[in-house]
Amino acid sequence: MPAAPDPQNLDELVTPALLVDQSGFRHNLTTMSAAKPGRTLRPHVKAFKSTDVARQLTQAGHGGLCCATIREIEGLVAAGVGDDLLLANEVLDARRLGALVDAGANITVAVDSTETIEAAAAGGVKRALIDVNVGLPRCGCAPSDAERLADTARTAGLEVRGVMGYEGHLMAVPDRAKQKRKVDESMALLLEAHAAVGGELVSAGGTGTFDLNDAATEIQAGSYLFMDTHYAKIDLPFVQCLSVLATVISVNRSGGWAVLDAGLKAFGMDHGDPTIHDGEVLFLSDEHTTWAPSDLTAVSIGDRVRIWPAHVDPTIAKHGVMWVHDGATIVDRWAVDLPWW
Amino acid sequence: MPAAPDPQNLDELVTPALLVDQSGFRHNLTTMSAAKPGRTLRPHVKAFKSTDVARQLTQAGHGGLCCATIREIEGLVAAGVGDDLLLANEVLDARRLGALVDAGANITVAVDSTETIEAAAAGGVKRALIDVNVGLPRCGCAPSDAERLADTARTAGLEVRGVMGYEGHLMAVPDRAKQKRKVDESMALLLEAHAAVGGELVSAGGTGTFDLNDAATEIQAGSYLFMDTHYAKIDLPFVQCLSVLATVISVNRSGGWAVLDAGLKAFGMDHGDPTIHDGEVLFLSDEHTTWAPSDLTAVSIGDRVRIWPAHVDPTIAKHGVMWVHDGATIVDRWAVDLPWW
Repeated sequence: MPAAPDPQNLDELVTPALLVDQSGFRHNLTTMSAAKPGRTLRPHVKAFKSTDVARQLTQAGHGGLCCATIREIEGLVAAGVGDDLLLANEVLDARRLGALVDAGANITVAVDSTETIEAAAAGGVKRALIDVNVGLPRCGCAPSDAERLADTARTAGLEVRGVMGYEGHLMAVPDRAKQKRKVDESMALLLEAHAAVGGELVSAGGTGTFDLNDAATEIQAGSYLFMDTHYAKIDLPFVQCLSVLATVISVNRSGGWAVLDAGLKAFGMDHGDPTIHDGEVLFLSDEHTTWAPSDLTAVSIGDRVRIWPAHVDPTIAKHGVMWVHDGATIVDRWAVDLPWW
Repeated sequence: MPAAPDPQNLDELVTPALLVDQSGFRHNLTTMSAAKPGRTLRPHVKAFKSTDVARQLTQAGHGGLCCATIREIEGLVAAGVGDDLLLANEVLDARRLGALVDAGANITVAVDSTETIEAAAAGGVKRALIDVNVGLPRCGCAPSDAERLADTARTAGLEVRGVMGYEGHLMAVPDRAKQKRKVDESMALLLEAHAAVGGELVSAGGTGTFDLNDAATEIQAGSYLFMDTHYAKIDLPFVQCLSVLATVISVNRSGGWAVLDAGLKAFGMDHGDPTIHDGEVLFLSDEHTTWAPSDLTAVSIGDRVRIWPAHVDPTIAKHGVMWVHDGATIVDRWAVDLPWW
């Protein structure tokens, strides 16, 4: 099949297509970089899984990046993006990271147990953060156990750069004053651990707490670049700039609905259905969204409609490319090139 | 980075990894092929998005395949798999299909409006099915409008091969006698349309109704090959053979939970959380499942655990490869090579 020419305009895109509004993205990037300049922000690559996006963050001064998968780290190293890469997650197959360290990459890994410390040391990783449970029932040691693990890590030959703790259970507290109090309580646990562990880093936070977390020396945030209908419920200075462009492929005038060609395979569905600003999303199938527009007489087959995801990270992960647009004009394309594991 | 050797054993897989139990898959394939041999089954490629799987179905006698996206059709044609490909969905950019027809592919497209008929004819597609709404609020014309659309299509130069209607709203009715009555009512609409339209095909059905739908000349089913916890609630002769292998990366003994390295990005989440046979899945994050095992003392960091998806189609679409296993031995790998659109 001959390669199609690059689309110049939104109308030329095969749908469904993942869109990024350029001005919104730039607003989000610069707003966060002003609040958290340089190394006080460690952008989270899991949100977008793209070396093209990560490169823009390093160019904005954020040379320290964090990742959730080894594959993301491998891809950044292969692309030469970032000079201080944190795998903010526990892993046992640390030899994949050690191979990158052997080749000169600067990699730090989160550890929360003797087993993950031993795996890191045996795999050839040289630097670690002690991951502390600060209230989210997920990874992380008890604050009181952090000192023992730091000693274990140092004995195993690892440099312990500090602590990490993700207050993920507090990202979406709608009352920001209440959220601030809860973040402070959570971070008191992390600071207790840090006092025992030492090191220059207290790595924590996320898009929902970036401006409330005073304990962190660096904020781990990624979703702020794109936002979604879930984060939009919180009073944050970022705008939704990520949407999915879909085409009306069928209209049922007596039934009162239209059908769009973007479905479950184009959206992260764990936070519920995506949103269309006009009318109501009724349900999604694998490749369809059934939609009740407020005025169906104004809708025709072939119309193009923007759909707003409920959860940015797993939505982007379902696409191969983000189309960057200024109005109807396509100005760039960013590959989603860090898939899988 | 040097390529790693192909894994021979489940223990060698990078996790999360999508697994297919070979004996279960073979049971499902042969059970359905016995019930619906040859052209009475038109396997739905959207379920698995893999030419490796589609090829096995054509080798089992099902040379007619159906798809939900143009990309799936393009990939099958490029791989030379299938001799009668149905795009069981409405499209406007039919020129992508016409280009394949020009090159000799046998392609039929679903149409439910003047606009989609005109797009098919203008794009160079030669064959169509009239898509009829049989109760699911999605695509498909009114049964009473099918004759007019068939006339329109024939006037536009299309061969009308018959009708299509998907009773998707009836796939998961737990009382099978009630399900049978409802399927009969739904298919009466399709047969009414077929009587007016003519043609050799009445294409309908799915995994949940394959044995109840007496109207269809061909059943469109794909999920039966793998199954999921949602379909498992219905009394069907297929077994769940698709799971995600994950590794325990953290254990919180005082909290009573363990953390696995497979999360939202490894599962279709629209039907809810996946299942672990032992204990309870508490919640999923992007790359984690927090799990309360029935006996946490029996769980260690590094253990490997099978997680069972709630919805097969969007789960497979999140992976790049299916690892086929016989017990602990990996016997094959099937690429998920028909991603996106």
